[in-house]
Amino acid sequence: MKIRPLGDRILVLRVKEEEKTSGGIIIPDTAKEKPQEGQVVAVGRGKTGDKGERIPMTVKAGDRILFGKYAGNEIKIDGVEHLIMHEDDILGIVE
Amino acid sequence: MKIRPLGDRILVLRVKEEEKTSGGIIIPDTAKEKPQEGQVVAVGRGKTGDKGERIPMTVKAGDRILFGKYAGNEIKIDGVEHLIMHEDDILGIVE
Amino acid sequence: MKIRPLGDRILVLRVKEEEKTSGGIIIPDTAKEKPQEGQVVAVGRGKTGDKGERIPMTVKAGDRILFGKYAGNEIKIDGVEHLIMHEDDILGIVE
Amino acid sequence: MKIRPLGDRILVLRVKEEEKTSGGIIIPDTAKEKPQEGQVVAVGRGKTGDKGERIPMTVKAGDRILFGKYAGNEIKIDGVEHLIMHEDDILGIVE
Amino acid sequence: MKIRPLGDRILVLRVKEEEKTSGGIIIPDTAKEKPQEGQVVAVGRGKTGDKGERIPMTVKAGDRILFGKYAGNEIKIDGVEHLIMHEDDILGIVE
Amino acid sequence: MKIRPLGDRILVLRVKEEEKTSGGIIIPDTAKEKPQEGQVVAVGRGKTGDKGERIPMTVKAGDRILFGKYAGNEIKIDGVEHLIMHEDDILGIVE
Amino acid sequence: MKIRPLGDRILVLRVKEEEKTSGGIIIPDTAKEKPQEGQVVAVGRGKTGDKGERIPMTVKAGDRILFGKYAGNEIKIDGVEHLIMHEDDILGIVE
Repeated sequence: MKIRPLGDRILVLRVKEEEKTSGGIIIPDTAKEKPQEGQVVAVGRGKTGDKGERIPMTVKAGDRILFGKYAGNEIKIDGVEHLIMHEDDILGIVE
Repeated sequence: MKIRPLGDRILVLRVKEEEKTSGGIIIPDTAKEKPQEGQVVAVGRGKTGDKGERIPMTVKAGDRILFGKYAGNEIKIDGVEHLIMHEDDILGIVE
Repeated sequence: MKIRPLGDRILVLRVKEEEKTSGGIIIPDTAKEKPQEGQVVAVGRGKTGDKGERIPMTVKAGDRILFGKYAGNEIKIDGVEHLIMHEDDILGIVE
Repeated sequence: MKIRPLGDRILVLRVKEEEKTSGGIIIPDTAKEKPQEGQVVAVGRGKTGDKGERIPMTVKAGDRILFGKYAGNEIKIDGVEHLIMHEDDILGIVE
Repeated sequence: MKIRPLGDRILVLRVKEEEKTSGGIIIPDTAKEKPQEGQVVAVGRGKTGDKGERIPMTVKAGDRILFGKYAGNEIKIDGVEHLIMHEDDILGIVE
Repeated sequence: MKIRPLGDRILVLRVKEEEKTSGGIIIPDTAKEKPQEGQVVAVGRGKTGDKGERIPMTVKAGDRILFGKYAGNEIKIDGVEHLIMHEDDILGIVE
Repeated sequence: MKIRPLGDRILVLRVKEEEKTSGGIIIPDTAKEKPQEGQVVAVGRGKTGDKGERIPMTVKAGDRILFGKYAGNEIKIDGVEHLIMHEDDILGIVE
């Protein structure tokens, strides 16, 4: 089953803690919201502006991203947990 | 009886849990809002912009969609439960 | 006595439950806001945009509409209960 | 003493219940906000848009209007109770 | 000491109750916010729009105005109590 | 150490109560927010508009200003207490 | 591992208290939010405007900045604590 996110939403496959690369992101022990790591599976066509024009997306499928802990809606696709979130919920891209 | 949704609203026929395709969306057991599956029955003509122009709709009748659990207003048409919601309440389209 | 709604407001004659057509809208027994049925009696000239231009109305007098339970202000005209609401409070048009 | 309302405000003389025409507006006995009847005494020059241009007013002095119960600021002018409210607080014009 | 209000702010000298003209504004005994009377001492150059242009002020020094009871910041200048408020806090001009 | 405020922010040196000129601003004894006096040390280049253009600043270094009691962030520079605040937090300029 | 902040976000390396230059910023003992000092490691390409155009960033990698105590999301990169925040969370640049 394939999901096409609507508008400026993206479909993200969350990266599990144990799968992280060594020397990668280690979450500090504070009360702050902790960023999560994931991989972009699919992106929407972009938000629609006030005049009906498309605002292009910045991220693309395959990008490895960081996002806030409480971003998006959880959804399981063919048994695998994914997230659907707005592009603005992405903090940064891991290069 | 036929309903034409107003503005950027859509009329949705909710898909019952037992009707889901195998290997389809299984809702994880968390406190997050769980997406629901449905079929678009009718769409409005689109939102009206600041200058009176129409912003075209992205979804069309027949599309299978995911939406948030608390999206829209419930309504029974000829005895069948439907939902009327804004297009922006749609998370993604099932392809 | 005749009322001309201001801006994007409409004057609506609520349809009583017992007047509904058979096979019509039956409100499900849930906690969700239940749509109500009514007939448009009069419409305003439309909202005024940022440059003073009129945004035309989508509904017209005579349209049969659905609206949220808590939409609008109640008003009796010549002894008959009506509602004045914003056009955006309309969920859909019954065709 | 004469008051010129500022921007899109209007000065309204409230119509007392006993002064209403027979067959006129009778407020139903519900918990909803009840519209009030009044006469426009003076109107402002209209709101100022983002570019300094005037958005003309829809109502004019002499119009008989309906407005929400909690709209506006009360003010007595030469001993008579008036209201100053924004034009958008007007529900409709009695014709 | 002279104060030049910034942006769309105005400097107002509040009119004391006992200084009001006979037949002037008498505040009704209700729970509503009661308008206050004052004289404009100085006005700012006007708000700055989205493109850096000035939105001209509607009131000028010397105007007698009505304003809401809780509008503005109190300030004493050379021992006399004044108020600094936004122009939009003015309800009307006394002519 | 020199600080360049970002965007439409300004750096302000607060004027201590005892340093005020005689006949200057005396704060009345009320529950209202009391304006504070200060001197502008540095100003940002101005806010960036929707199209990337600069909105020029109204105040300049050296201006003596009034601002709300709770405006801005406190910061000590070379041992002296300063404030960084948005230009819109300024109530007026002392001339 | 390298992080490219998205939109108008920046990646910041927080400056520890003991690393501050003498005569530098000393936080006063008040209840106000205290600014923090840091160094910009990477900046996003800038916010996307309503028409899809880029709003350029004001700060650049290497800039020493002040920001509010509660700004941004904490993140450790290769074992070192960083922050990702919006450019608007920056109070000023240390020159």
